[in-house]
Parts: sequence; C-alpha cells; structure tokens
Amino acid sequence: MKKYFNTDLSLKNVGEVVELYGWVNKKRDLGGLIFIDLRDRSGIIQLVIRPEDKFYDLANSLKNEYVIRIKGKISIRESKNLNIPTGEIEVLVLDLEVINKSEELPFNIFGDTTAGEDTRLKYRYLDLRRSTLQNNLLVRHKVCLLARNYLSKLGFIEVETPILCKSTPEGARDYLVPSRVFNGKFYALPQSPQIYKQLLMIGGIERYFQIARCFRDEDLRADRQPEFTQIDIEMSFANEEDIFSVVEGLMREVFKDIRGIDLSSFERICYKECMDRYGSDKPDTRFDMELKDISDVFKDTEISMFKSVLDNKGIVNALVVENASLSRKDIDKLTNYVKVFNAKGLAYLKYENNSFSGSLAKSITDSESALLIKKLNLNNGDLVLMIADKKDIVKTSLGALRVKLGHELGLIDKNKFNFLWVTDFPMFEFSEAENRYVAAHHPFTAPNEDDIDKLINDKANCYSRAYDLVLNGYELLSGSVRIHNEELQSKVFEAIGLSLEEAKEKFGFFLEAFKYGAPNHCGVGIGLERLVMLLLGTDNIRDVVAFPKTLSASDLMSDAPNVVSNRQLDELGIAIKKD
Amino acid sequence: MKKYFNTDLSLKNVGEVVELYGWVNKKRDLGGLIFIDLRDRSGIIQLVIRPEDKFYDLANSLKNEYVIRIKGKISIRESKNLNIPTGEIEVLVLDLEVINKSEELPFNIFGDTTAGEDTRLKYRYLDLRRSTLQNNLLVRHKVCLLARNYLSKLGFIEVETPILCKSTPEGARDYLVPSRVFNGKFYALPQSPQIYKQLLMIGGIERYFQIARCFRDEDLRADRQPEFTQIDIEMSFANEEDIFSVVEGLMREVFKDIRGIDLSSFERICYKECMDRYGSDKPDTRFDMELKDISDVFKDTEISMFKSVLDNKGIVNALVVENASLSRKDIDKLTNYVKVFNAKGLAYLKYENNSFSGSLAKSITDSESALLIKKLNLNNGDLVLMIADKKDIVKTSLGALRVKLGHELGLIDKNKFNFLWVTDFPMFEFSEAENRYVAAHHPFTAPNEDDIDKLINDKANCYSRAYDLVLNGYELLSGSVRIHNEELQSKVFEAIGLSLEEAKEKFGFFLEAFKYGAPNHCGVGIGLERLVMLLLGTDNIRDVVAFPKTLSASDLMSDAPNVVSNRQLDELGIAIKKD
Repeated sequence: MKKYFNTDLSLKNVGEVVELYGWVNKKRDLGGLIFIDLRDRSGIIQLVIRPEDKFYDLANSLKNEYVIRIKGKISIRESKNLNIPTGEIEVLVLDLEVINKSEELPFNIFGDTTAGEDTRLKYRYLDLRRSTLQNNLLVRHKVCLLARNYLSKLGFIEVETPILCKSTPEGARDYLVPSRVFNGKFYALPQSPQIYKQLLMIGGIERYFQIARCFRDEDLRADRQPEFTQIDIEMSFANEEDIFSVVEGLMREVFKDIRGIDLSSFERICYKECMDRYGSDKPDTRFDMELKDISDVFKDTEISMFKSVLDNKGIVNALVVENASLSRKDIDKLTNYVKVFNAKGLAYLKYENNSFSGSLAKSITDSESALLIKKLNLNNGDLVLMIADKKDIVKTSLGALRVKLGHELGLIDKNKFNFLWVTDFPMFEFSEAENRYVAAHHPFTAPNEDDIDKLINDKANCYSRAYDLVLNGYELLSGSVRIHNEELQSKVFEAIGLSLEEAKEKFGFFLEAFKYGAPNHCGVGIGLERLVMLLLGTDNIRDVVAFPKTLSASDLMSDAPNVVSNRQLDELGIAIKKD
Repeated sequence: MKKYFNTDLSLKNVGEVVELYGWVNKKRDLGGLIFIDLRDRSGIIQLVIRPEDKFYDLANSLKNEYVIRIKGKISIRESKNLNIPTGEIEVLVLDLEVINKSEELPFNIFGDTTAGEDTRLKYRYLDLRRSTLQNNLLVRHKVCLLARNYLSKLGFIEVETPILCKSTPEGARDYLVPSRVFNGKFYALPQSPQIYKQLLMIGGIERYFQIARCFRDEDLRADRQPEFTQIDIEMSFANEEDIFSVVEGLMREVFKDIRGIDLSSFERICYKECMDRYGSDKPDTRFDMELKDISDVFKDTEISMFKSVLDNKGIVNALVVENASLSRKDIDKLTNYVKVFNAKGLAYLKYENNSFSGSLAKSITDSESALLIKKLNLNNGDLVLMIADKKDIVKTSLGALRVKLGHELGLIDKNKFNFLWVTDFPMFEFSEAENRYVAAHHPFTAPNEDDIDKLINDKANCYSRAYDLVLNGYELLSGSVRIHNEELQSKVFEAIGLSLEEAKEKFGFFLEAFKYGAPNHCGVGIGLERLVMLLLGTDNIRDVVAFPKTLSASDLMSDAPNVVSNRQLDELGIAIKKD
C-alpha cells in the first residue's frame, strides 16, 4: 500500500526517499533531463530523470497514461509552480518500473476536448481520471459519511430495506423484475423505501435512516437518473419541529465541512403564501422581486384585457424590475417566454420622470396610475411587467419569469445558500390525465388537523402536513408527517379513488400494520445528487454519479440494457412481444 | 423529539420530570396502583399510576402494545429489579396521553411463542419489536458505520455503482429488469460490483469501497438471501499483503467494538495444504484433529479395501479422536454420515492397552500397527477413523466428519474467533454440468505468476492469487489480485471456453479499458450478513436482515413477488408465457 499520495509531499519531505505510483500525465524532454508529471488521485508531482540514469531510455519510452512505480528522492524545485500543491518540490528518480502501458486515448480527456458527452460516457473510466470528477465523487462520499455519523450520533439507525419489493403503482412507474420461482409474478424496484421505513417505525425502531437507492422508470429529464440516491430519514414520536431541527443540523454540518460556510437561519413559508409571493413552490429567495397582486388597482378598469379577466375571477399580478434597461426587443422575448406557461401576453409599463410609457401607457387612467405607483412603491426607472389570467397561469408564468430575470439581470448572489421550508402543501392535486385527484405528495401524508373534513368533499382546499426544503430554487428534500391511524389511512385511499378492494390488494399488509400500535411519525427523503450538485455548483447530475445513464436510461459504457438469452427468458416464463 | 430513551434514565435522574414515549409492554393492577412496563427501543421502564390520578381510568383501559406519551417524575423504586438497567427507578406518572391503540396481537411476540417463522415473517413489523431483532439491526448498523469510518480514514472513497447493469451471465443467475424504452432489452441486477470497481481502479480512484447490495437468482439455502450486502473493497498499487492488512485492521476494530475482543494473529495457509490438513477450504481451526495421510502405513497392505484404493492412486487418511467414548452405534451413524459425501465406508481402530480393537483389528499386521501408532502418535484411548478412496472424496468426507465431531464432542471453544487466510486457490474448477473448466473465483482473478503457462494446458494445476478469509469454519470474504493486462485477461476468457466473440460481446468494454493504463489492483468482498451473524452468534441469516425473504425468495409480509397489470407488461413489451 503506497504510503504517500503525491500531494501528501511538500518541502518538509525534502531529502526523503519515497515510493510513488501513478499515471504519466505529461512528459517533457528538456535538454537531456526528462521531466514527468506523475498523476495520482491527489494531484500532480514532478519527476526528474537524468541522462546518466540507467532507466533513462525506459523513461524516454514512456507515453501519456502509462502506469509507473518510482522510487525517488524529494528535492527542492528550482522553478517553482505555485499553481499546484507540490509545486515547490520535485522527485529525483532513483528507480523506475512500468506497471502498464497505454494506447493513445480515444479522446483528449484533460483540458479542452472536442469529445461529446456520449463519447465521454462510453469511456467513463477514462473520464473519471479528470480531477473534477474525482473531486465530485470525493465530495459525495464525504457528504454521505458526514450524514451517517451525524444521524448516528442522534440515535438514528441505518437499516437496509429491500430492493426486490412489491409493485404498488401509485405515482411514478415501477421497474419490474420477473420472478423465476413464481413465473408470471414480478418484484418491483422501490421508488423509495417509504412503506418499509414506516413499518420500521411500527416495528419500534423509532429513529431510522438509510442512504437508499431509489428507482423510477420515467422519461428522464436533464436532472434525473433512473436510479438515484436519497438520504432517507424517519422518526417516531416527532413532529415537524423535530425533523426540521434534525435536517437543519445536518445541512449546517455539511455546508460547514464541504464549503466552509456557516449557514444563516432557515426561513419558513406556507405553500399558499409561497405561490402568491413567488409563483413557485420552490422559489429562489436569493433575490426579491416578488409577485404583487394588483387586481384591486384595476377593479373598475376599462382596459379590456384586464377587465375580462377580472370579470371571470382571474387576477392581475406584477413584477417590478428596478432600474430596468430592457429594450422593446427584450420584452418581446419575455412575452414569448411566458407564453410557454400559457400566459396570453405580457403587459408592461415603464415608470420614468413621473410618467408611464409602455404597452398600457395609453389606456391606463390617471387614478389607476396613482394607485399603481403607490401599491408598487415605484421609483424612477422601474419597469412593471404584468400578466392577467386565471390565477394558476398568472402565478406560474410570472414565477418562471421572475427566475429568468433573476438570472439574466444578475440579481442572484451565487455565493448565497438560501434555505426555505415550504409547508402545508395541498393534500391532493388534480390529474388531468387520470381525471381524478391524486396524492400531491404520497398517500401516506397526514392532512392538516383542520382539513380532515375536507378529505372527501373539498379536496381542492385540503392541505397537508407535507413540507419541502428548498435551496436556491431547487427542491432539496420533501417529507411529511405521516398518517398513523388505519381509519384515516383508509379514508385517504378512498379520497384518491382507490377502492377498498384495491387498497387492500396493494397496501393491505400496510393497513393491517396500523392496527397494532403504530406510533406517530414523520420523515424526509433528501435528494443526495441534488445536494451534492448544489454544493459543487454544477447543474449536470451526471457530474455527481460515477456511472450515469443517458436520457434514454442506457449505459453507453457497458451497453446496458441489452438482449439476453432465450434460456434466461424461458426460466423467467416470459416472452418478448413482437409487434 | 424525545429527550430520553428509557434506559438513559437511572438513579441520577431521581426528582427530574421527564417526557417518555413508547409501547405498553405489560400492565399490572396491584391493589389500586397500576404498574405499567413502558417499552421503547432501549428497553423497559416502570410507570406508576395512583388511584387518585385523574387519568387513572384511562390508564386502566390501556392494553398491551398501546402507544402512549407520559410525563412523570423519576423516583426511587422500592422493590428493585436488577435484571433491567432501569430497575432501581420508576416513574410517577403526572400526565398520560394515548397516541394509538392496538388490537390484540396475532401471536405472542415476546417470550415463548408457538408462532412459526412464516407467521413471524408475515408480521415482520411486529417481530421487529423484539429486543433481540432490534439489537441485531443495531449491531449491523454499528458494523457498517465502523467499516465506513475505518476505510475512509485509510483514504478509501465510497462510490455507488449502478444497480441497473448489463447481464453478463458467468457464475450465478442474474435477476433481469425489462427495459421500457428499449423493448426486448434487459438490465440485470449486479451479482457484485466487480466490473465497476475494477473500472474505478482504471479510472484512477485508487482506493474504493462500497457497502453494496448484491443479487443472485439462485435456489436459496438456509444461509442465503436473494439480495445481500457486501463490504466491497478494491485498491490499486497493492498486493495481498496490503489488502490483508486493511481487512485485518477492520476485523480488529469490529470485534473490539462490538464484542470487546482483542483478536490474536491471523493465520495463513495455502489452499492445497488446507485441503490436506482439514479436508475443507474453510476449516474451523478452533480445534485440531487434523486429517493425517496414512497411505504409506499401508503401502504393502493386504487389507483388500485399502489395497485396491492404493493401487488405483487413491489415498488413506485418518482422524484421531482423543479419549473417544464412541459406541459401535455412534460409529455406524458416522459411517452413514460420510456416505453422503460419497465415501464408501469408514474403517476404525480403537487403541487401548497397547492393542487395537475395531473393524480393522483383525486384518492389520503388527508392523502396520506399529507404524500407525508411531505415525499418529497414538495414546491410550484414541480412536482412529479412516477412509480410503479417491483423494477428493477422502478429503471432503473426512473434512466434514471432522467438523461434525468437533461440534458433537464439544471440542469447540465457542468464545474463540479463529481467523485464517486461505490463499492460492485453484484458478479453475471443472464443472460436470457444463463439461468445461469454469473460473473457480471469477474470471478476473490473476493466476499465480508461475502458473500462467498452465492457463490453457494444465488447468487442474493452475493456481491463482485468490484468497478467502475464513472465520470459525465460515467463509467471511473472498477476494483476489486481479488481472490488469488485456492479453492475460483474454487468455483467461479463452481458458474458460469463452470465444473471442463471446468475450467481446459480454466484456468488450471491460477488455478495452485495460488498453489505457490499468493499474495493478486487488480487492475483497466481505459478506456483511455473515460477519454480523458470527458477531451475534446466530446461524439464521433472517435474524440480521430487517425484511428477509423466504427460501422461495418471497416476502410474506408484502406478498412479493406478485402479479402486475397488463398495462405494465405492455409498456415493457413482454408477455407471460402460458404453459
């Protein structure tokens, strides 16, 4: 086992004879002396071979990515390179052995490359030699180790729950595994350990965690993988305050350890207020520019666009861009942008020298102007962007516009980490596809005490004890206080249109478990990849996964998925359908 | 979040008012006073409710397994119970809340039960309330945490490798996962992260570990589960000595921490010697009674059974049972036992008062007797058990007999933990089923330097750099120095009868990886369940798995595997075959 990684060495080791192992990163022949940048996981160190060394010819034959072992003496370097940790020393080679050769790499790994991501994924084992990726994996490792030690100290026990589970399709699509012993039956890979961790609470484990692999067979987006990892936590005899405190402590440790940052306070907001103010349930609170409801400014308006919306119970909201220098063309672009979110248009008013210009300047009345200036507290140079429509369209489109402007206008301080608890999520959301209300979080979430009566008859206004932790506009985790009562659980199944029979078939064992003294409990699942991405400042999930899959869920390196033999299919009792 | 677990409390807390949560373990009504044993994860504490308490009736209505919250004052207990940690105190209840009720349990969980294991597995969440199972999970958690911290300190990085992999059937049977995006193609669940961890070495990670879920779709034995967990380690620029030292350090920490034991030295033996001396590659070395080759004693024998064996290149081996008091009937049983291992019979000689009795007493010559006494160093009262047959039958059957006798005769000190490295395993073993040599370990194992020439032409005598760590007769881990050279890897594929085409199809990406500077590397996979079982002294793997499966790989609790909908099958493009 090698004693030193390259960057363990420094001026304090001068004179020491060491053994080093690694890859030839670069070789230079400078007037007889051969200089080699030896690379290992930690970084680069410079080796020097002299013409009189008996392994000089061998050294000369080395090419990039050859694997070597050397013995050498640490010396002070004349021309120091302060860009690397070992830049003040070099190693006078005393012995050299070639462990393995390397063909020329299929693409340029280090520095600029013309290779596309597909090529990099095919040769992932080579791409992993880049220090960026290695550092990403190291950070991911550190976060996990830190989380495990932190939670263990608080009395949480890591318990492994099964990967071969039962298919209970409610939410995303399951990956299935055909059973060989019971032909025609299938296991499912878990979308999360949700049911198992709740059963652990019923089993008296009280405080559980698991850094758990989860699987969803969904059409992938750029920031999703078919398998992903969750820091999964569940605790009994606890409520929102307890779980918030556990999670906040964890985040403080992680950000301190990895980024050296002391996090400030964690803000809280309820879902309804969050949607009103930010038009999103995962707002980026690193900048203000909140959505303002200006419906009452226009309550008697003759502006036809606003009037018809307001007459139909719609609303008018505004964003105020301070000191805006947006051209007419810029605003046209923004108008096209909000149309993606089904907004019909974007009205605007520029406030300068005590008067308005812009799309509404001619139709707005003096009293409306005065009201607007007062309501929005407008200052010289402000731009008011307005959307009038049904409430959800107004909120969603202006919320998206807010984030876009935040980025484009440089309103976001990249060094900020703003955590926000969003609470009291709706219990249900209406699925147009299924023409029924489905669980907004999952069907094990407890409704707010006051809303239990609304479970069946007023689903749209039934709120829950579900919460998200949002960081800089990303949902970092979600969780909830769970139902721990059989009757209430059955009622929620009923509310989402699961018949008693279906509920029994899918979740019968789970419902039965509630009969035997289930403790109250709550929990969260923290998206590990998301957390590491935010810590590292990358928005490519493949940067934090050792062997990621593409958007079509294939592994370009091993060529998975792939065909299998007929013997395998026969044993499983399945056949491939021919179209 | 509760501040105290029950057993956190002791005499030092007397007078303190605390809030406790847990399950009613038992309720006794003793002349007005109600005593409740409150159970939580940590153990039991006694609660006292007085007739004058306003919640007395509520307390009276409590039944076993009700979930309650109490506030109470810690007091000194009059009749102390020194069998439990909290036996010197009790809690005078000041407030009582029922969190949840419980129906009568479907079987008696605590203490003696008539419920079979199937019932316990169906209600696993109830069985988990037993302190034994909870302690088992706690120990498993501690072992994992300790391993992670230990390995991290040595510079190992935990990297998660995929669960959705490529099927490369070579060894056990894969679990398959049909792809929805590519109908007709399949992923496989990993039998181990073998290829990925080797690719991480090629990727320059240098020191990897992962506590990894592995899957094998095999007919299960009592000590196997379809999914199991492995402490998986791989390191570059390292050899056997390095990995042994890492593993030994880990075992020392684990046994010290969990059992308070300072392990003595780790012995080593090569496979050939191990088979010769113990008739097993996983010998229990807590007792001696080694196999002795006594072929030369009988080289000129007229004992027909021995003579014909020796004439046909067979061998005669003996076990010496010291001070044996085995009856003729006992020996008949042993004879039947060895027949399971294909031995044709079991000869025996009892040495008492300088003469032999037993099955061979009349046919053995004086000179053979003298040689035998000398060779086996016999003492008065010794019993010699002998088998003559082909070498592998002799070794296997006597090896099994040795272990059986060790247990039955009480030769084994249960408090001993004897670790033994078995090295230089055969490279190949002949598969009767496939009528070819297959990889004994796996096809990535490096052959011994001296045996490379034998890869193709003398497979039976080709040994490898594979090693096992054996503990008390169980294989705790296996590992090997890996091949890091493309040419040698191709040769091994050829040796196991994989055509160049097949090798390319299955492992092409892996072979290609060797072209680009693969470091030398080696590793191990430690069976986590096995390790925890040995630490806990249980031989039931289901005791150390939170939600285990039965021998037919089903989960009796959730009823997995199960049927799925036609919609799900259609999306995957598969159909169930009808017989």
